[in-house]
Amino acid sequence: MPEKELRIELLSTTPNPLELVYAAFRQCYHAGFVADMWPKLLSGEIEKDKQAAFVSAVLESGHDSPIEHVNFTFAVEGISRACSHQIVRHRIASYSQQSQRYVAENDMDFIIPPAIKKIPEARARFEKFMDEVGSAYKDLREILVAAGRESKANEDARFVLPQAAETKIVITMNCRSLMHFFNLRCCLRAQWEVRAMADKMLEICKEELPAIFRHGGARCEQLGYCPEADRFACGRYPTLKELTEKK
Amino acid sequence: MPEKELRIELLSTTPNPLELVYAAFRQCYHAGFVADMWPKLLSGEIEKDKQAAFVSAVLESGHDSPIEHVNFTFAVEGISRACSHQIVRHRIASYSQQSQRYVAENDMDFIIPPAIKKIPEARARFEKFMDEVGSAYKDLREILVAAGRESKANEDARFVLPQAAETKIVITMNCRSLMHFFNLRCCLRAQWEVRAMADKMLEICKEELPAIFRHGGARCEQLGYCPEADRFACGRYPTLKELTEKK
Amino acid sequence: MPEKELRIELLSTTPNPLELVYAAFRQCYHAGFVADMWPKLLSGEIEKDKQAAFVSAVLESGHDSPIEHVNFTFAVEGISRACSHQIVRHRIASYSQQSQRYVAENDMDFIIPPAIKKIPEARARFEKFMDEVGSAYKDLREILVAAGRESKANEDARFVLPQAAETKIVITMNCRSLMHFFNLRCCLRAQWEVRAMADKMLEICKEELPAIFRHGGARCEQLGYCPEADRFACGRYPTLKELTEKK
Amino acid sequence: MPEKELRIELLSTTPNPLELVYAAFRQCYHAGFVADMWPKLLSGEIEKDKQAAFVSAVLESGHDSPIEHVNFTFAVEGISRACSHQIVRHRIASYSQQSQRYVAENDMDFIIPPAIKKIPEARARFEKFMDEVGSAYKDLREILVAAGRESKANEDARFVLPQAAETKIVITMNCRSLMHFFNLRCCLRAQWEVRAMADKMLEICKEELPAIFRHGGARCEQLGYCPEADRFACGRYPTLKELTEKK
Repeated sequence: MPEKELRIELLSTTPNPLELVYAAFRQCYHAGFVADMWPKLLSGEIEKDKQAAFVSAVLESGHDSPIEHVNFTFAVEGISRACSHQIVRHRIASYSQQSQRYVAENDMDFIIPPAIKKIPEARARFEKFMDEVGSAYKDLREILVAAGRESKANEDARFVLPQAAETKIVITMNCRSLMHFFNLRCCLRAQWEVRAMADKMLEICKEELPAIFRHGGARCEQLGYCPEADRFACGRYPTLKELTEKK
Repeated sequence: MPEKELRIELLSTTPNPLELVYAAFRQCYHAGFVADMWPKLLSGEIEKDKQAAFVSAVLESGHDSPIEHVNFTFAVEGISRACSHQIVRHRIASYSQQSQRYVAENDMDFIIPPAIKKIPEARARFEKFMDEVGSAYKDLREILVAAGRESKANEDARFVLPQAAETKIVITMNCRSLMHFFNLRCCLRAQWEVRAMADKMLEICKEELPAIFRHGGARCEQLGYCPEADRFACGRYPTLKELTEKK
Repeated sequence: MPEKELRIELLSTTPNPLELVYAAFRQCYHAGFVADMWPKLLSGEIEKDKQAAFVSAVLESGHDSPIEHVNFTFAVEGISRACSHQIVRHRIASYSQQSQRYVAENDMDFIIPPAIKKIPEARARFEKFMDEVGSAYKDLREILVAAGRESKANEDARFVLPQAAETKIVITMNCRSLMHFFNLRCCLRAQWEVRAMADKMLEICKEELPAIFRHGGARCEQLGYCPEADRFACGRYPTLKELTEKK
Repeated sequence: MPEKELRIELLSTTPNPLELVYAAFRQCYHAGFVADMWPKLLSGEIEKDKQAAFVSAVLESGHDSPIEHVNFTFAVEGISRACSHQIVRHRIASYSQQSQRYVAENDMDFIIPPAIKKIPEARARFEKFMDEVGSAYKDLREILVAAGRESKANEDARFVLPQAAETKIVITMNCRSLMHFFNLRCCLRAQWEVRAMADKMLEICKEELPAIFRHGGARCEQLGYCPEADRFACGRYPTLKELTEKK
């Protein structure tokens, strides 16, 4: 049962994303048909910089529904079941996750929290326990198989697998849902694991579509202040109260 | 105010859609990481035919969530506001629609129902009325502008525009939502206009991604029987009752 | 074809809404089971004021998912099809709307914009046009019926009905979706009609569940500043820039 | 660390649910305003039996959007984290779940699969392992606290908690989403735990609103045949192929 590192691959993304968002915004206020404008967007006859500046300006005023037309699909491995349980709570998204009912976990990988990793005593205790998990899983599978329950042995033995057990998941989100995901999960209040994942996804998104994702991140990055209650503020940005009083 | 024809352009679609759906399905039941399988899917080392057959088989057993990872974006013009009102009731989708508040409708186009078009008397009455609409819109805008309400003149004058008024809309739906859309809107019980639009969209989808969309269409096409109550059945397929009694 | 006034009735709402939201919040951080706490919430053993204060405090820090457990169902009449088209764009909601395909509109009611109502010349022009609509609808229905198209006559004749045509709709939204609806639709940038409707709904919500809806309204009411771009700011609240510079 | 039994309490449900669904259905096809019909529905002037028969008939023809107006809120305890991870994949719902980040699990309860419970050897191995979990959790918390990480000790120690760890959750779903949940989760192909939970929820729903939920259950109960592929059919109902061939 070895430790597993976080790995995120961008499997797919909507082609010509800037042009598509620009076209969708324009269709709302334009008398013509964007399909006729489309070739000019692709050829650069309407310049990319102009498109990016337009999209940025509209986003800043808080009107973001057209960015929904662009989707990103990530394949993620090296996250714990604790983390995937948090992720799938985001409902405006599509998920395909590795099933512990169907995939046997004889060589289960696991995720070890950085704080535990850094303390040798904690790490040793954690790894000892992971061995205990492996034994319990193996023993239970064998007992179940011997009792004629082979077809359901994975399904039942999995009850001993820890939250640390590694899982893999394919995630598709549109840009608006991603921005919301980053708002919550890039915040220092989020758990370290989902934050590491969100930070990495944001980095990929920024590279792919900077006109939109340079506005992305924890809510403070967009607002210029921390919207959390005082007692939760991390200090990176002033709270609104601090901001208005300071001046 | 001229008549306008339906026109649908596919602006964008997820690249490598078959591979992506196959990868998402496989991630659920596979011990490895699909990002590692991905190059073999693209190169054809895992054959396209095999991928398509796998996807078809899973879809037939009713498990369709992985097809959500693939999205289609259409630009549509030449539909009435009556039709767009029906479309936007589909909630698992993203829309950017031309606004009558911002776009002046001095040269408003309109949609004429085929049944009216075929009866010369009906068509003449319809077109005479469209002229009356044009006059009313123009008169009201002028009165409002003269009264100092220029900024809101479109917004208020639009109240005289008919359901027939042409609109343009950019639509993104994932494949699962599209399949549901086709289930309802390709059925002969749907209104002629949204049905014409759905039929055309299905045609495009079939060309792009036959492994999935050859299962698409009204519900009867998938089930092999008509699930509507007897009195609504169109006769193209037997109802379930007829099917089981006939044999 | 008479004019019709806006009327909104609260058909139904989740019983004990404050207790339910409090229970849901508490379940997240509490070792016990809220079903065991529930009788104490209903009896007032845990005081209502304490519950309300707790809910208010959590909402202020931006954590609002538990308010989704409470739903409101409104019946609305006296709105235009222009307005209902805007409403149904809110996707986290359930709608049942009067169909123009099935209900004949011989005595169609309509909505007249206040700005048009106030200018006698505009009002007269508007009402004259509504008579033209009535004639066109009636004539087309008769021609279609005479041509043997009785079953589809409403469906096709409806194409002449104006955006002003009155409609009725049953709407269910949970509190989180309602808060978002008020954020957008109580803003002075929203169209007068949907704003009038949102204001009336907010009034009802405040009466039913003040602990939550005293935080409701346009975004400025919650933020204490206007988040729109400068050129769109109505002046009721300072923009963030003005707020931080003023001090 | 004791074993915990499943317990489901209905915290709240929309009042007058039959009347509300009937009203919503009627508003679609009715010229009048359902708010005016509402008192007659509540008083029984329009008889309950008639309302129930109407709703049943419409549901049978597959038109189910009006049942979305009615919501049920359940409080659930005695389910595993494995089970809650499956539940929250249903996206048209609202959840408030007990957090392992905030609630210390010193006296963690757990769920034991029935198949393991029935085999004394398996049960003993399972329970021995649960003691190992308790020790590991306690040890890790102590080491983390001693290292000055008290505030995050729960969050990190939770990585050793098993899928069997008991959780509590408040769930709100509307009737349409519930029907879909029952379609999937009352099927014999679903895991025993989520099936037990779905069966119990269905029982409660049937008692509260029989006009709708007598149509509820696995898909076979509604269709009269099993829609799964042959190799997955449990035999309770014939497959469609068997059904049509048999006759």
